Amino acid sequence: MSFGRVAIIGLGLLGGSVGLAIREKLPDITTTGYDSDTATRHRARERGLVDTVCDTAAEAVAACDLVILCVPVGAMASAAAEFASALPPHAVVSDVGSSKQSVQDALAMALPDNPIIPAHPVAGTEQSGPDAGFATLFDGRWSILTPPVNAPAQAVTDLTEFWEALGAKVEIMDAQHHDLVLAVTSHIPHLIAYTIVGTASDMEEVTRSEVIKYSAGGFRDFTRIAASDPVMWRDVFLNNREAVLEMLGRFTEDLTALQRAIRSGDGDTLHDLFSRTRDIRRSIIDSGQDDAKPDFGRDH
Amino acid sequence: MSFGRVAIIGLGLLGGSVGLAIREKLPDITTTGYDSDTATRHRARERGLVDTVCDTAAEAVAACDLVILCVPVGAMASAAAEFASALPPHAVVSDVGSSKQSVQDALAMALPDNPIIPAHPVAGTEQSGPDAGFATLFDGRWSILTPPVNAPAQAVTDLTEFWEALGAKVEIMDAQHHDLVLAVTSHIPHLIAYTIVGTASDMEEVTRSEVIKYSAGGFRDFTRIAASDPVMWRDVFLNNREAVLEMLGRFTEDLTALQRAIRSGDGDTLHDLFSRTRDIRRSIIDSGQDDAKPDFGRDH
Repeated sequence: MSFGRVAIIGLGLLGGSVGLAIREKLPDITTTGYDSDTATRHRARERGLVDTVCDTAAEAVAACDLVILCVPVGAMASAAAEFASALPPHAVVSDVGSSKQSVQDALAMALPDNPIIPAHPVAGTEQSGPDAGFATLFDGRWSILTPPVNAPAQAVTDLTEFWEALGAKVEIMDAQHHDLVLAVTSHIPHLIAYTIVGTASDMEEVTRSEVIKYSAGGFRDFTRIAASDPVMWRDVFLNNREAVLEMLGRFTEDLTALQRAIRSGDGDTLHDLFSRTRDIRRSIIDSGQDDAKPDFGRDH
Repeated sequence: MSFGRVAIIGLGLLGGSVGLAIREKLPDITTTGYDSDTATRHRARERGLVDTVCDTAAEAVAACDLVILCVPVGAMASAAAEFASALPPHAVVSDVGSSKQSVQDALAMALPDNPIIPAHPVAGTEQSGPDAGFATLFDGRWSILTPPVNAPAQAVTDLTEFWEALGAKVEIMDAQHHDLVLAVTSHIPHLIAYTIVGTASDMEEVTRSEVIKYSAGGFRDFTRIAASDPVMWRDVFLNNREAVLEMLGRFTEDLTALQRAIRSGDGDTLHDLFSRTRDIRRSIIDSGQDDAKPDFGRDH
């Protein structure tokens, strides 16, 4: 492994999982870490998320070969500025953010002299904070690298090997395409889930108690991702605005077509769609991206 | 238990689970069953979903004290007509359909002389057919009874005890309120899930392979309920049209407000909603209606 020392900035679900995965799978790497929140640093020390939890970002990156920013995408610029003067000139800069074009721009501006290879491991849970991470989070998941055109090839190769060693599969694409793809597979699903949970909470005719009691009819599935970190997701929507609005437009068109089918009693249109959507779940299970057990394997 | 002989019409996920739950939890009850599909009857015999699988619905109900229709809500009327002349006059008629006003009307029309107590156990998985059922499906879930005003009190009491014996908790409400509540907690979530899976499948700029690979970003959660039985769900939307359209209107308004917030860069509105929606997941877990484990307890 080309990276002997890795610094992790932000020690929540993702940062903590990267630290724990390195300890388990790449034990020769020395890790340092920093989080702007004092309580998180304290808890990170207790859990041993990294070898050394530092009290400043500058201290954490001072001797690193790779720094990974694991903060909300809207906080990338300020987090990078905080350690810019202490970063070794050879150190590769990466991140785990859910939108990539805005992060690439922010990091290039803040750290113009270092190689920057943005990354997005498509993995997570609805939990957040220093207690949420675990070493196997990336096993079998895809990590997408979006190297800018001027990125050094060796750094891309090194970062690919790094993520593969942590258990991930690696795909390389440009940042704009990433942002469009993830708008579909992640951002719009989160927006829809947040919306329906909000709608259900605000109803007058149906009480909150009823929503909770009868949530096993389908609603509870949406509450999981609607319990995700609010700051992280606010930043995703503000930083991937164009792709999200574009995809939201498509979704709304399709929903309107179904609404019309329901209003006019057009059962064939409903049945056609409901039959087509089964295949994609089967493909997701066959590709190892979800559990084959009914109901996600929930206890029954 | 007041019911000595129970007939189950329709031997898919729900009918099969009722049969298996009776065998495990109410072993003194004798069960008969019927399904209009020959292959399903064959498989139901192999799995022993009921004591006797009959080759006609009339034969299945001939000596029963309770008949439970476990067919799509659009098929209730024809299923009831098929056995109407063979049904003993004292037999209580119930069902497990996901909409209740239309079912109540259909059964009252088809079986005017029998006591009718519609029911909806809010439980299921995305699987369907005679292999999908299991005895513990109803454990801890709510079963909603919607007795019409003229329903005999004893029959309501008997059916309540029956569902409680199968592991469910019972709530009684009127059919119209049921249809509004379930539009929120079940029907709209299914419609949204079917829509987003359809939207993602139809994109030109993002390939199906990409949708599958990066589905762990949130999308895969939606594919589970979008894999549910197409005929069952077509019928739900056609039979609960008014409540579904009303709730869909609310959802669309809320989604439009979020769209505007994203377009205008209004992070506070996004953050406020994303913070509120966490509570409801906590309440659902605390009430025993979902698993506390991160990511639904999926393997990591």
